[in-house]
Amino acid sequence: MRNALSLHSIRSVLARLEETIIFGLIERAQFKQNRIIYKPGGVGRELGGESLMGFLLHECERSHAKVRRYTSPDEHPFFPSLPDPILPPLHFVSPLKPNGINLNQRIRSEYEGKIVPLICQAGDDMQWGSSAVNDVNLLQAMSKRIHYGKFVAEAKYRASGRALRPLILAGDRHGLLAAVTDGAVEEQVLRRVEAKAAAFGREFDAGRGRYKIRPRVVRWVYARWIIPLNKEVQVQYLLARASGGGPAA
Amino acid sequence: MRNALSLHSIRSVLARLEETIIFGLIERAQFKQNRIIYKPGGVGRELGGESLMGFLLHECERSHAKVRRYTSPDEHPFFPSLPDPILPPLHFVSPLKPNGINLNQRIRSEYEGKIVPLICQAGDDMQWGSSAVNDVNLLQAMSKRIHYGKFVAEAKYRASGRALRPLILAGDRHGLLAAVTDGAVEEQVLRRVEAKAAAFGREFDAGRGRYKIRPRVVRWVYARWIIPLNKEVQVQYLLARASGGGPAA
Repeated sequence: MRNALSLHSIRSVLARLEETIIFGLIERAQFKQNRIIYKPGGVGRELGGESLMGFLLHECERSHAKVRRYTSPDEHPFFPSLPDPILPPLHFVSPLKPNGINLNQRIRSEYEGKIVPLICQAGDDMQWGSSAVNDVNLLQAMSKRIHYGKFVAEAKYRASGRALRPLILAGDRHGLLAAVTDGAVEEQVLRRVEAKAAAFGREFDAGRGRYKIRPRVVRWVYARWIIPLNKEVQVQYLLARASGGGPAA
Repeated sequence: MRNALSLHSIRSVLARLEETIIFGLIERAQFKQNRIIYKPGGVGRELGGESLMGFLLHECERSHAKVRRYTSPDEHPFFPSLPDPILPPLHFVSPLKPNGINLNQRIRSEYEGKIVPLICQAGDDMQWGSSAVNDVNLLQAMSKRIHYGKFVAEAKYRASGRALRPLILAGDRHGLLAAVTDGAVEEQVLRRVEAKAAAFGREFDAGRGRYKIRPRVVRWVYARWIIPLNKEVQVQYLLARASGGGPAA
């Protein structure tokens, strides 16, 4: 976590996650929507009332929790009940104020209900397991990218001197949202995302302009969900910062 | 599994796995080698003598076994002891002769000992969990690609009429290896892999010719491991075919 708040470090993490997310969208788009994998009890009552995707996500988090994944301040679980780590704790100083912000319920719901129908063809191709495994990887990458807003917000807070404090103390969500918004930077991110999606998603052995997923769609996933939810995390973090009992900046 | 032996179906599966594998190599290459994650007991005795990567791979297979991943003829586990599926079995007719061919021990050993040192920078960046999670995904994709040789071999056997039978009956491994080898097709695959790696692995925001992993290295992973091991599966499958007690072709 050393230098975790340097702009260089944050930018390089975000840029790498961008590629993981784009790869993940392309991978998921090869399969049909397979709605049944999101339906509680859909593939069998044996999964304890969970959907297939929910079951695999929970199982994955259980095993990762054992090796202390969620003790890291940049990781956020989708499920509240997870086993304790079996490995001894790592000792590091988090640069963040202690907080309980976790948007994963919303991320999962938007993903299942809106993003999957956007990126995948309708229908069922029986590739349930492969689709669900891709979903788990993609949801975890999106969650990490979105919750990285905490690091971004902490860095902005420290860099802003006292500029953000009146907005935080007044609980001014709209003012904070405006303060953390930089339209020019967002447009730059969206253009880069679209360019990467065009490079990674191109169909080889096919004519020009054929894509496994249209670059505009990937751009839209960023414009509609990833960037706004990341800013929501920033605003919530800044508001919580005032009441937090953590170490002073 | 319908049409699983059509050349079109096999080619499209292999081409898609190619992209999963290349994405996986690029993802893993962002982290250092982190040798400690492959060392039994390396990150803590709490993992029951397994390495961190081995522990996560085993945990992943355990949960996927529960949802019947390994009942599918194109999936092969790395660990022999896995729980029974909790979902009821799917009924499908496998186009393959029953066989117990599984090269995963070798794939894992080559991967940990040779491929990781080839694709990742030496050293330790403390990204143990992320590296190991990438390893698990990549090993599973490589295993699927390599064991798809069974489908390729069955298709070749059926297409060859009686041409392969004398070699099989004589147990002629060298003859079979020559018979399943097509140098022109291999060169075509290697060129496509290198071209895809160049498109996917290019560093954005950097000068021309900067890659997250050199395309020649990705080509070499295919030339040195994936293609030869796939052919090894084909030869073993054809040899086992003679003695197999499965349904007649």
